[in-house]
Amino acid sequence: MIAGICARARIIDLTHGVRRHDVRGGAITLGEAIPYLPVGVHLAVVDPDVGAQRRAVALALADGRLLVGPDNGLLVLAARAGGGIVEAVDIARSPLRLEPVSATFHGRDIFAPVAAHLAAGIALAQAGDPLDPDELVTLELPEAVVRDGMLIVHVRAIDGFGNLQLDGGHEQVAGSGLQLGRTCALALPDGSVVPVLYARTFADVAPGETLLYEDAQRRLAIAVSHGDAAGRLGLSIDDELRIRPR
Amino acid sequence: MIAGICARARIIDLTHGVRRHDVRGGAITLGEAIPYLPVGVHLAVVDPDVGAQRRAVALALADGRLLVGPDNGLLVLAARAGGGIVEAVDIARSPLRLEPVSATFHGRDIFAPVAAHLAAGIALAQAGDPLDPDELVTLELPEAVVRDGMLIVHVRAIDGFGNLQLDGGHEQVAGSGLQLGRTCALALPDGSVVPVLYARTFADVAPGETLLYEDAQRRLAIAVSHGDAAGRLGLSIDDELRIRPR
Amino acid sequence: MIAGICARARIIDLTHGVRRHDVRGGAITLGEAIPYLPVGVHLAVVDPDVGAQRRAVALALADGRLLVGPDNGLLVLAARAGGGIVEAVDIARSPLRLEPVSATFHGRDIFAPVAAHLAAGIALAQAGDPLDPDELVTLELPEAVVRDGMLIVHVRAIDGFGNLQLDGGHEQVAGSGLQLGRTCALALPDGSVVPVLYARTFADVAPGETLLYEDAQRRLAIAVSHGDAAGRLGLSIDDELRIRPR
Repeated sequence: MIAGICARARIIDLTHGVRRHDVRGGAITLGEAIPYLPVGVHLAVVDPDVGAQRRAVALALADGRLLVGPDNGLLVLAARAGGGIVEAVDIARSPLRLEPVSATFHGRDIFAPVAAHLAAGIALAQAGDPLDPDELVTLELPEAVVRDGMLIVHVRAIDGFGNLQLDGGHEQVAGSGLQLGRTCALALPDGSVVPVLYARTFADVAPGETLLYEDAQRRLAIAVSHGDAAGRLGLSIDDELRIRPR
Repeated sequence: MIAGICARARIIDLTHGVRRHDVRGGAITLGEAIPYLPVGVHLAVVDPDVGAQRRAVALALADGRLLVGPDNGLLVLAARAGGGIVEAVDIARSPLRLEPVSATFHGRDIFAPVAAHLAAGIALAQAGDPLDPDELVTLELPEAVVRDGMLIVHVRAIDGFGNLQLDGGHEQVAGSGLQLGRTCALALPDGSVVPVLYARTFADVAPGETLLYEDAQRRLAIAVSHGDAAGRLGLSIDDELRIRPR
Repeated sequence: MIAGICARARIIDLTHGVRRHDVRGGAITLGEAIPYLPVGVHLAVVDPDVGAQRRAVALALADGRLLVGPDNGLLVLAARAGGGIVEAVDIARSPLRLEPVSATFHGRDIFAPVAAHLAAGIALAQAGDPLDPDELVTLELPEAVVRDGMLIVHVRAIDGFGNLQLDGGHEQVAGSGLQLGRTCALALPDGSVVPVLYARTFADVAPGETLLYEDAQRRLAIAVSHGDAAGRLGLSIDDELRIRPR
């Protein structure tokens, strides 16, 4: 669709690996990748409510990027990473959409055509009806806390290696007493406790051992060196973990 | 292979998600995508009989598109969508192929080189030996019928979400008495009967509920909102379903 | 990352299908594809020891190609296919890397930036510190042998169809007495013996039957026509097989 509308658009496939219907996982992936992408039009579709009353939107960010996608929280973290929204339009009835619009494939019929026309240079205001950015759907994310010297975190995302991204970062680690190079106690939802080394990288433990580390997005994460932490520990998105120094 | 022969070719990966050996699934995917693709050279390879006597072909369509692939039915629906075949050549012994040709990887050795040379502007007649389009292999597809006020359909394809595409369309629905917004009775191959809403889109039912709808290709389809219909209902390609108003 | 540094780079995704941590599988895939790719900068990342002391390297080959990736054996077969290494640099502390470098994502922070700058024309010597190619990590691969009129081979790789690539080639077949069109006896690791036709291609046997053939890389391989040989025979990488004429 994009190549047909804007033949000179350079299309970069960021990922096709977001799990189906996983709006939050898509939002996290997009938000973390945005700072490393050239400024451009960023089209994202994870859209379990396609055809319902959810809005379709196009957003201009402070850093010059444009975002296009469903208004279901998918674009929230990317918008924040791009310095916030300076202009928003509702594109559900965009004059740029493909007619007739199907009820179930807005990626093809609305999002891609609008993104392509924006890439070709059309003004955002021509793509849809003005919208107050404060009306956009937000995203609920669990939050790490430190309580009684214990770091209480949640599984925020699981990557293709089974590495578990947690919702804690620098601040929480500082308040929790964890020290790089020291083993800590990881309490799983089923009550069992696993010792894990708080390390810099996978190679700091033997293959098959579990480690806690700061990932490439500077968030706490759990991995099994050369292995699959999610499978090994039986953990899923949103599971709560408790970590304390030993 | 293509970039090495025609450096200025713009290559669009339509999908790498067709199941292995699934010629029919590939044919359906290609046929439905073609109307949305820029006119160009369309290369498709699902080729379980590579190395056998099946022909390799390149086809010129009425709408200016060129198709390249094995002659096993894979290109049939795309050819129809492009207005039919105006010229066909057998490329099994094309002077454009890569020598030596392997017995098992014609994607690399025949199809990609021929497609690249066609993209670079060589005439179809230079790519192979003339062939009567009527000699091409056809594709057997089940057909929906209405009998005794009952719509008898078959699973035509299953997408990555587990949505089931059926072989019925507008005409069959018109004759079956189904009405949008009404629940109908879906009889599965094992004899069990499931109530499903005939709805416009996923969002018209609660998450986890099953619906019958017209998909983005205007064919009847069955989905579970936010779920996996094929898994839930235990259905596979070609399974016969019986649908009647309740 | 690459598009941001070298906007005119043409990026070809060779594969994202290498299994995680499978350095050898990645090395084989890359080494076999290289001869069919345009000369350019070839970036490969299968990197289970990211963040450890393993080197990151960029290599210039005799045929003009440049390779970028971890020094863990991944680039060895590609280097050989490109005529050998004429210049090597260690890029772990490259001035071209993205600062700050994360401990776990060198694909983003080291390999992609260096590859992009090389594509943009920077000299290899500017990308890192000189390195003796003889110091690079090598790759241990099993080797086929003929002993007592029996061909002893190993599973070298398994492709997405379940086809088993073996480590034997022309020379071994010549010494083993195997003849095209004749059935031979395949002894599996569990001691069972399966008759297989030594054939030219899948189509030489009925669907569901097992064949031994020379694959598109001119290596011996085992497949089940229209089926999954690895699954059917219960074989894994490195398994030893014994083949003799019947």
